[in-house]
Amino acid sequence: MPARPTFSVGLIGTGFMGKAHSNAWRQAPRFFDLAAEIRMTAICGRDRAVTSRAAKKLGWESSTSDWRAVVADPGIDIVDICTPNNLHAEIAIAAARAGKAVLCEKPLARDAREAERMVEAVRRARVVNMVCHNYRRVPAIALAKQMIQAGEVGDQIYHFHARYAQDWIGNEKFPLVWRLQSRFAGSGALGDIGAHVIDLARYLVGEIDEVSATSETFVKSRPLEAKKSVRGRVDVDDATAVIGKFRNGALLNFEVTRFAHGRKNQLVFEINGSSGSVAFDLEEMNYLRFFRTADAIGRGGFRDILVTEPSHPYVARWWPPGHLIGYEHTFVHTIADFVNAVAAERTVRPNFADGLRNQRVMDAVMRSTRRRSCIKF
Amino acid sequence: MPARPTFSVGLIGTGFMGKAHSNAWRQAPRFFDLAAEIRMTAICGRDRAVTSRAAKKLGWESSTSDWRAVVADPGIDIVDICTPNNLHAEIAIAAARAGKAVLCEKPLARDAREAERMVEAVRRARVVNMVCHNYRRVPAIALAKQMIQAGEVGDQIYHFHARYAQDWIGNEKFPLVWRLQSRFAGSGALGDIGAHVIDLARYLVGEIDEVSATSETFVKSRPLEAKKSVRGRVDVDDATAVIGKFRNGALLNFEVTRFAHGRKNQLVFEINGSSGSVAFDLEEMNYLRFFRTADAIGRGGFRDILVTEPSHPYVARWWPPGHLIGYEHTFVHTIADFVNAVAAERTVRPNFADGLRNQRVMDAVMRSTRRRSCIKF
Amino acid sequence: MPARPTFSVGLIGTGFMGKAHSNAWRQAPRFFDLAAEIRMTAICGRDRAVTSRAAKKLGWESSTSDWRAVVADPGIDIVDICTPNNLHAEIAIAAARAGKAVLCEKPLARDAREAERMVEAVRRARVVNMVCHNYRRVPAIALAKQMIQAGEVGDQIYHFHARYAQDWIGNEKFPLVWRLQSRFAGSGALGDIGAHVIDLARYLVGEIDEVSATSETFVKSRPLEAKKSVRGRVDVDDATAVIGKFRNGALLNFEVTRFAHGRKNQLVFEINGSSGSVAFDLEEMNYLRFFRTADAIGRGGFRDILVTEPSHPYVARWWPPGHLIGYEHTFVHTIADFVNAVAAERTVRPNFADGLRNQRVMDAVMRSTRRRSCIKF
Amino acid sequence: MPARPTFSVGLIGTGFMGKAHSNAWRQAPRFFDLAAEIRMTAICGRDRAVTSRAAKKLGWESSTSDWRAVVADPGIDIVDICTPNNLHAEIAIAAARAGKAVLCEKPLARDAREAERMVEAVRRARVVNMVCHNYRRVPAIALAKQMIQAGEVGDQIYHFHARYAQDWIGNEKFPLVWRLQSRFAGSGALGDIGAHVIDLARYLVGEIDEVSATSETFVKSRPLEAKKSVRGRVDVDDATAVIGKFRNGALLNFEVTRFAHGRKNQLVFEINGSSGSVAFDLEEMNYLRFFRTADAIGRGGFRDILVTEPSHPYVARWWPPGHLIGYEHTFVHTIADFVNAVAAERTVRPNFADGLRNQRVMDAVMRSTRRRSCIKF
Repeated sequence: MPARPTFSVGLIGTGFMGKAHSNAWRQAPRFFDLAAEIRMTAICGRDRAVTSRAAKKLGWESSTSDWRAVVADPGIDIVDICTPNNLHAEIAIAAARAGKAVLCEKPLARDAREAERMVEAVRRARVVNMVCHNYRRVPAIALAKQMIQAGEVGDQIYHFHARYAQDWIGNEKFPLVWRLQSRFAGSGALGDIGAHVIDLARYLVGEIDEVSATSETFVKSRPLEAKKSVRGRVDVDDATAVIGKFRNGALLNFEVTRFAHGRKNQLVFEINGSSGSVAFDLEEMNYLRFFRTADAIGRGGFRDILVTEPSHPYVARWWPPGHLIGYEHTFVHTIADFVNAVAAERTVRPNFADGLRNQRVMDAVMRSTRRRSCIKF
Repeated sequence: MPARPTFSVGLIGTGFMGKAHSNAWRQAPRFFDLAAEIRMTAICGRDRAVTSRAAKKLGWESSTSDWRAVVADPGIDIVDICTPNNLHAEIAIAAARAGKAVLCEKPLARDAREAERMVEAVRRARVVNMVCHNYRRVPAIALAKQMIQAGEVGDQIYHFHARYAQDWIGNEKFPLVWRLQSRFAGSGALGDIGAHVIDLARYLVGEIDEVSATSETFVKSRPLEAKKSVRGRVDVDDATAVIGKFRNGALLNFEVTRFAHGRKNQLVFEINGSSGSVAFDLEEMNYLRFFRTADAIGRGGFRDILVTEPSHPYVARWWPPGHLIGYEHTFVHTIADFVNAVAAERTVRPNFADGLRNQRVMDAVMRSTRRRSCIKF
Repeated sequence: MPARPTFSVGLIGTGFMGKAHSNAWRQAPRFFDLAAEIRMTAICGRDRAVTSRAAKKLGWESSTSDWRAVVADPGIDIVDICTPNNLHAEIAIAAARAGKAVLCEKPLARDAREAERMVEAVRRARVVNMVCHNYRRVPAIALAKQMIQAGEVGDQIYHFHARYAQDWIGNEKFPLVWRLQSRFAGSGALGDIGAHVIDLARYLVGEIDEVSATSETFVKSRPLEAKKSVRGRVDVDDATAVIGKFRNGALLNFEVTRFAHGRKNQLVFEINGSSGSVAFDLEEMNYLRFFRTADAIGRGGFRDILVTEPSHPYVARWWPPGHLIGYEHTFVHTIADFVNAVAAERTVRPNFADGLRNQRVMDAVMRSTRRRSCIKF
Repeated sequence: MPARPTFSVGLIGTGFMGKAHSNAWRQAPRFFDLAAEIRMTAICGRDRAVTSRAAKKLGWESSTSDWRAVVADPGIDIVDICTPNNLHAEIAIAAARAGKAVLCEKPLARDAREAERMVEAVRRARVVNMVCHNYRRVPAIALAKQMIQAGEVGDQIYHFHARYAQDWIGNEKFPLVWRLQSRFAGSGALGDIGAHVIDLARYLVGEIDEVSATSETFVKSRPLEAKKSVRGRVDVDDATAVIGKFRNGALLNFEVTRFAHGRKNQLVFEINGSSGSVAFDLEEMNYLRFFRTADAIGRGGFRDILVTEPSHPYVARWWPPGHLIGYEHTFVHTIADFVNAVAAERTVRPNFADGLRNQRVMDAVMRSTRRRSCIKF
């Protein structure tokens, strides 16, 4: 076996995602046999002191407040982008031009135009690129994919029905964070959590052909973060509902909202096919529910598959059957697959092209909402 | 106390609904203190022998195959219509003209035009009229209504999200029954089970303002019932997905399908408001799930309210706490309320006017599906 | 087909069980093809006025306050005993001697000695006899029985694990009803709900070989029903826990309590065998959960079998798949089977001999509690 | 703030627990603000090559196959024991005598006599000592403890009812691993998973006063690990059922088994008190179910508390609300608390004295099984 290469990683962003990705960079080599060694070289954040402390806590060798320095550093092999959405394109394009492999948080961009430029940049630079739709690598969801591909729910898919519901901005006093402003976020619930749903729809069922959508902003102004006595306008969707069709004829229906009190991070979906169904709930993420028409008469029923068996995707590297994993593990799986792809110089999905297709669906959803009609691709 | 009147009932229809209504006519006086005595006078069906046996089994004094005779019979006070949808209008209008109180199975009609004529007929005749949307009288749903009215989920409703999923025609060999032909049924999944969802949406949240919809017929031809070797065209929807808005600003999203393998009669809905949420599943119909933001910090969570307490709607007449009731009981509650309304000569909801509004939503859904755009009322 | 006989029924008791049995006598002929016609001839209760009203409401032709008159009436074929436990033996023995078929509420008696006399009486009189352990005829439980008999959980049973939890006497102010006094009830939670558990254990797994038990009376005195200011001693168990073994080597573990706040009528059990498991919860009584080791690798999981298919026991007579039944239906099934057995003059289980074996287990449980040691049969 | 000390850790054991503890030693400083720096100095295992690889993979600076060298090393501050049970006492006593803080996997020992010697050793050495009953630090269980202490389930506890069910040795061909031999393990399901249940019972409810028990070994011989054609005797319990009482009068009932097909790692418990109940299931470990009698009439029901709020124990250090954690996190919490206790030189629970009390309960359970009578402490 030749010596494994070592990849130096630069991470941009110190928020929730910066913490989650840092954990994944630390943990991936401990549980997976990666094709490369990982050096957690640099973390970058706006605030120098905060970033310096984060570097120490999260395991990075150095810290900086200048993302351009990270991207320009010839010692860096991989750039991992965990910033607000408005910076994704600029950083990713610069990183690609500098020949870095790029992992970018979702949604890839604020709109399809930005995403197109990003795809073009990685295509030209021939760098490995990936969007961090980490839910593809929930073991239960990866299992659903295997089962669908193996025909276990049938030749034909009838329905993809999903809801992603949270409640963290349900309180009117919650401030106008960047996720509630279109210039930073592109869209609201749609881009934040809808992007995940669209990615899963494409991953599990196929390309989307047409959409009709409606959306609402329930709380139209909110206190500024910097000055609570002043209110600013919320110009993104608080909730969006979408119906449509896939190219293969399946019906699409999903709803995303941050106004569902009691639902903390509930991504549920159900897929019905011609010989079975699968159902998933992110708040019980170690389970996949599965119905098959082939079960003996009178013995059919949705099965609670506890997706912790060695045969299940990713699971063998963790703990024995019945020992649950959590949210953070999905990032470990994503980064493990990404590192192996970078080492092999091969494509890994979802890549930027997937991110662009996702963005086109989101753009169509927003267009449909404005035009009040069905948008066909 | 004056002597209670006695109401003679004539029931038209001997199928699934005829059986369910017969049971309710028998049971209502056993468990509820009705304002009238009930005489189960006549049942009417197409097949004379079948109907005669049904009369005996189900508890009717007489049987006939001529619905006009029932409607014309001066001894009949109440006509209960359990026929296929295409006969609802003709029978109901005749019954109203004959001065009978009328209970009609859902959907009220095949389209709004028919429904308008029915509303006009009962209005002119001033007869008590009701559509049998029995799910309003599931105790858990009636409880949800009480709670919403009392403001327990907040001043503002954000979402009504529902899915009614069955799988009984999922098999391609299932024959072309009347429910799959528009001339008998009006529409497919929409009219059959979507009508229930729309009724609950209106009951629990309010009037609908606009809808966008898409639908699909997955199996486009099926064996004729009479001659299995010949196939006929399915000209109704197998599944329909709808998004829209209520007048009060809430988002509407529902999907109805008979192609969800593993879902036998799964009507689930969730309503999210500004200070709480309720969720329901017809396959666990004795429960209502309830979340309130006012719960102590760290102690919040959806509660499984087992709706079998004496304080819960309709429940005190049945069994002690913890003893479940089933599907058939919702008809008993409906008929008990109907009888009391007839005795008091007052309106009972959902009445034909509700049925008409329901039908208008369904018509708009079908129009939206064809026009591929949002339909505003 | 010869003309069906007509059985005249006399019911003793007008409480909760009197109401539940009355409903079953009314409903059984409506849904099942019984081998006999049913005449609901007489109901008997202590209070003449109450009983007269009950007769009318519940559908009985006549009422009386003298159970001996019912038992002595040559026109009566079947005596159905729904009284407090202390009267079971006397009435049942008299009824048997009078040649009546006897259905008796559980527990059969207050102790094994009483039960032995009852068994002896029906044996001598050669009358059909049955104990109303209605839960055997919950469709999901009857299905579990079929599956166990067919070997679907394996050749060997390892565990019968059950808990029957209620909370209706959790409040200290709840009065000293007859169920809390040993001279009427025999025992407390044990005889009331433990008798059900023992019956299911015997039905589903086999005869019990030995038991160890412990019990507690949490609230030792309570207000008298007649005079709330005076307190009387509670001399029965509020909760009892039992472990032991079946003759076939399976482990037995069950607990019964009326002090489990939030549990209204939660009878849960799980049976684990050498190739599968079944689990049941009375508060979701239309479901049976089933695990089989033979499922494909990575596809195993407990299935939620919704026991509403035509192939499931008793279900075809009710409603289409997915339409739930409730508590009261279990009595209808019991009475339908009882009537057919009476007509055929054959045994129906659980009969008085089963009731006696059940009582012997209960006696052993109480003895073990006192002696603080394992009691072997 | 004074400089934080640095603790050098030596871990003995490279199996499942060695991996889980290693992860916790790595992760604890990343998420918690520990009172000391951690140096992962040495890992020790029987096989030199395996241990060397494990050291690299798991993050240890060095490896050895001589546990005495670790214990004797003056540079080591903390010894963490993850060996089979038969080595716990010897290593722990040596480590204590060498002045090390000691963390020991459960069960503390094979019997109470061994455990007494261990308690004596740490008492004399005055070293901080802890048994790794990691489930105390499942956030949902730590929350249950807080709630019970605050009186949220009432002044009086009525029931502790638990079942810990697995199925990993259900297959008869599974070999005779050390956990199935009493000289290594002490007992079977009892010591392995029953020890957890007893620890939780004592933690949440209080000291146990008396027990009666029964147990079974369903598969009495198994293939040797080294030579599959030869079978050796299983001399430990495959399943054990226990009933008893706590000093405070509560009833105890628990069952542990590795023969419950379909249950992978299902530790469920329910505690019923005079004004509420809590229920937990390790296979849905991010939830605590809670019922309170004080809820408004008709609004009561078990709440699914998703224990991922910042106010919940340990949770604030991980992810935002609704983002699940898993099995491994409970070790991180345990080690974080242990490190802080070592730094402060104070007791942390469960300590060796708890382990001894736990062992005394287990010894009594085994004695009761043999003597077939109730054992009082």
